[in-house]
Amino acid sequence: MRRLRTAVLISGRGSNMQSLVADARDPAHPAEIVLVASNDPTCEGLKWARQEGLAVAGVDHRIHASREDFERVLNITLGIHRIELVCLAGFMRLLTPWFVKAWAGRLINIHPALLPSFRGLHTHARALAEGVKIHGCTVHYVVPAMDEGPIIAQAALPVRDDDTPDSLATRVLSLEHKLYPHALRLVAGGGVRVQENRTITGRDGREQETFIVPPLD
Amino acid sequence: MRRLRTAVLISGRGSNMQSLVADARDPAHPAEIVLVASNDPTCEGLKWARQEGLAVAGVDHRIHASREDFERVLNITLGIHRIELVCLAGFMRLLTPWFVKAWAGRLINIHPALLPSFRGLHTHARALAEGVKIHGCTVHYVVPAMDEGPIIAQAALPVRDDDTPDSLATRVLSLEHKLYPHALRLVAGGGVRVQENRTITGRDGREQETFIVPPLD
Repeated sequence: MRRLRTAVLISGRGSNMQSLVADARDPAHPAEIVLVASNDPTCEGLKWARQEGLAVAGVDHRIHASREDFERVLNITLGIHRIELVCLAGFMRLLTPWFVKAWAGRLINIHPALLPSFRGLHTHARALAEGVKIHGCTVHYVVPAMDEGPIIAQAALPVRDDDTPDSLATRVLSLEHKLYPHALRLVAGGGVRVQENRTITGRDGREQETFIVPPLD
Repeated sequence: MRRLRTAVLISGRGSNMQSLVADARDPAHPAEIVLVASNDPTCEGLKWARQEGLAVAGVDHRIHASREDFERVLNITLGIHRIELVCLAGFMRLLTPWFVKAWAGRLINIHPALLPSFRGLHTHARALAEGVKIHGCTVHYVVPAMDEGPIIAQAALPVRDDDTPDSLATRVLSLEHKLYPHALRLVAGGGVRVQENRTITGRDGREQETFIVPPLD
């Protein structure tokens, strides 16, 4: 089995990147993470990746004249490493339609909410302000519109009476660390087909499981 | 224990009403359903309720000159039956701010989506068009803005590869039949406090359960 050459793009600590790297250490994993790149060459996640012996690239967005210039350099870097699939993991730069279209179908992202609810930033504070009982996270293909694109997988958790944006962020992040590796295996394994805006994964469970919050007795 | 005198408002078959009535047959239930009312005096749900020996009221919206007139008659009907809590269950008339404010904190509704996603109609077709993997239903207090108001309880289920709006509607409706009786027990039992737009139910489960779609292996 040839493993898909995969890059993870980060901007900070890269905790989702770390969970992807850890899962892809499995030699049977359909993706091989061969590059971690960041728009912030000093970020913690790059240091961690370097220590792990991974190839890293810092492409500082601040020293490029425009978003397009930054992305051209990023794109060349991905080409040098013969990248076939890109995972955004807390990558905090909006990507232009040019970049997104160049990577169409090979670019995925994780968003800390149950899309289509709470696109954009501050999702946990907004979920609490909205009073939702079920919150979660979403892995999706990236399209030019922010936080849109075919959904690959979603995960949900109960919001608790005493949750704050921080406590919710902590629990959703733990869930992201399960969901993103799972979704990467699905995508890299070739098991995800896109039909219009839906993905077909062939993995419907037999059991009709449900999730009720607050819980039934 | 005095049971809360409860009315259910319907417009059609009233399947959610039937599930509420069935659950409230339990003498320990904190609500007693003493009236089923509809804006369509010929609807199936009223026939069913009459056969069950429940008091029923048909308040035909078409014979009233205005929405306000219709609601005044409805409100008088509720008063005659000394109603303390109103459950909307497939009630297809928009209510005016006057009616909603008159029943503030004593008027709840079920919506076939995980709010704040998919307010309004055709929620299942829209959920499929959006490609969500997790869909569900929500019971919430009614406020003047449609499908807003503090959320009392939510329930989620997995969307399947071959789901159609109809197949999804069928499974979500089964879930509604669990969720609405559960939420009515919470509300009528006095266990729900509202703080700004959040409800506090004191029923956080101990276990940190999560729900992932497509399922993990």
